[in-house]
Amino acid sequence: MGRTSTARERVLDAACSLIRSRGYEAVGVAEVCSVADVRKGSFYYYFDSKQALTREVIREHWRSERARWVAVLSASGAPLVRLEALFDMQADDIRAEQKSNVINGCIFANLSLELSARDASIRSDLESVFDEQIALVAEVLGEAMADGSLHADDTPHRLASAMLAQLEGLVLFAKLRNDASSLDGVWSQVRRLAS
Amino acid sequence: MGRTSTARERVLDAACSLIRSRGYEAVGVAEVCSVADVRKGSFYYYFDSKQALTREVIREHWRSERARWVAVLSASGAPLVRLEALFDMQADDIRAEQKSNVINGCIFANLSLELSARDASIRSDLESVFDEQIALVAEVLGEAMADGSLHADDTPHRLASAMLAQLEGLVLFAKLRNDASSLDGVWSQVRRLAS
Repeated sequence: MGRTSTARERVLDAACSLIRSRGYEAVGVAEVCSVADVRKGSFYYYFDSKQALTREVIREHWRSERARWVAVLSASGAPLVRLEALFDMQADDIRAEQKSNVINGCIFANLSLELSARDASIRSDLESVFDEQIALVAEVLGEAMADGSLHADDTPHRLASAMLAQLEGLVLFAKLRNDASSLDGVWSQVRRLAS
Repeated sequence: MGRTSTARERVLDAACSLIRSRGYEAVGVAEVCSVADVRKGSFYYYFDSKQALTREVIREHWRSERARWVAVLSASGAPLVRLEALFDMQADDIRAEQKSNVINGCIFANLSLELSARDASIRSDLESVFDEQIALVAEVLGEAMADGSLHADDTPHRLASAMLAQLEGLVLFAKLRNDASSLDGVWSQVRRLAS
C-alpha cells in the first residue's frame, strides 16, 4: 500500500515539473514514468491517459497553491495589505525560479495558451482555477470597498480579473526574458488598476 | 519561379495558422506540407527545420502586424487617441476570431509560454517582437507626456510594458474562455495604469 500510493505521488510530481517546464505536448508518458521511476503498468493503474494525468496535475497544483492564497488573503491586516502580500508572493515565486536558473512561469497560464483552443476538458479545469483565483481576490477587494480603503468604478469581480490579467502578463514577460524584474513593483501597477 | 515562390508562401501561411491554433509541438512538418499542398522536398528546399520555419513565421507575422501597429500609431490625432485605437484594434481582432468560432489569441504570447524556457533562438525572436511592441507604444506615450496630455510617475518604457502586459493577460482570459468580452473596455483598464 505504501509503495503504490508513493508511485502515484511520484508520477504527479514528475508530471507537474515536466509539464511546467516544457508544456503538455512535448512531454510523454514514458518520460514521466522514467523520471518518476514507475512502470507504465503502474502509471495506467492510476491514470487513464496523459490528459487524465494533466487534469489531476492541474487539480493538485491548484489545491496546494490555493492553500497558500487563502493563507495570505485571510491573514490579519487591512484588505489591501493582504492583497499586496499575495502579489508579492507571486513575484517572489518567480524570483525563486530565476535563482534556480529557469523561469517556467505559471503552469495554468502555460497550459491555457497551449490547450484552451483544443482540449475542452482541460480548458474547463483551467477556467475553474482562474474563476477561483478571481473570486478570492474579488472577495478581498469587496472588503476594501466596504471599509472605504478602496474607491473604484468597477465591480470587485472585474477589478480582480484585470489585476490577475496584469499579473499573468508580467509573468509572461518574465518567462520570455528569463528575468523576474518585470515583476518588480507589481503591486504598484496592479493597485493603479483600481484607481 | 512563380510556383516555387508560391509554395514558400503557402507553407508559411499554413504553418502560421496551424501553430497559432495548436502550438509548436503539436504541429508537424508533414501536416504543414499537407495543408500547404507542398511536397516535403520543397519544404526542405526553403526551410532547414520546423524551428527555422517557426522563426520565419514569427518574423513574417510580426512584419505584417507591425505595419498595422505603425499605421494606427502614426495616424493623425492626439497621442492617447492613437493608443486607444491600437488597443481597440487588438480587441477587434480577438472579437473577429470569436466570430469565426475559436479564439487562438496572440501567436507571440502562445509561443512565448510554450517555448521560452527551452528554445533560445525562438525566445530571442519573440523577445525582439515584444521589445519592438513596447518601443512603439512607449514612443507615443512619450509624445503624450511631452504635450502634457499624460502625467505619469513611470518612464514611457515601463508604462508601455505594463500596458502590453495587461493586454496579453486579457487575451489569455479571452482564449481560456473563448470569449472576447474580457477585452471590453480594454482601453479604460490600460489607461488606468498611467494614472
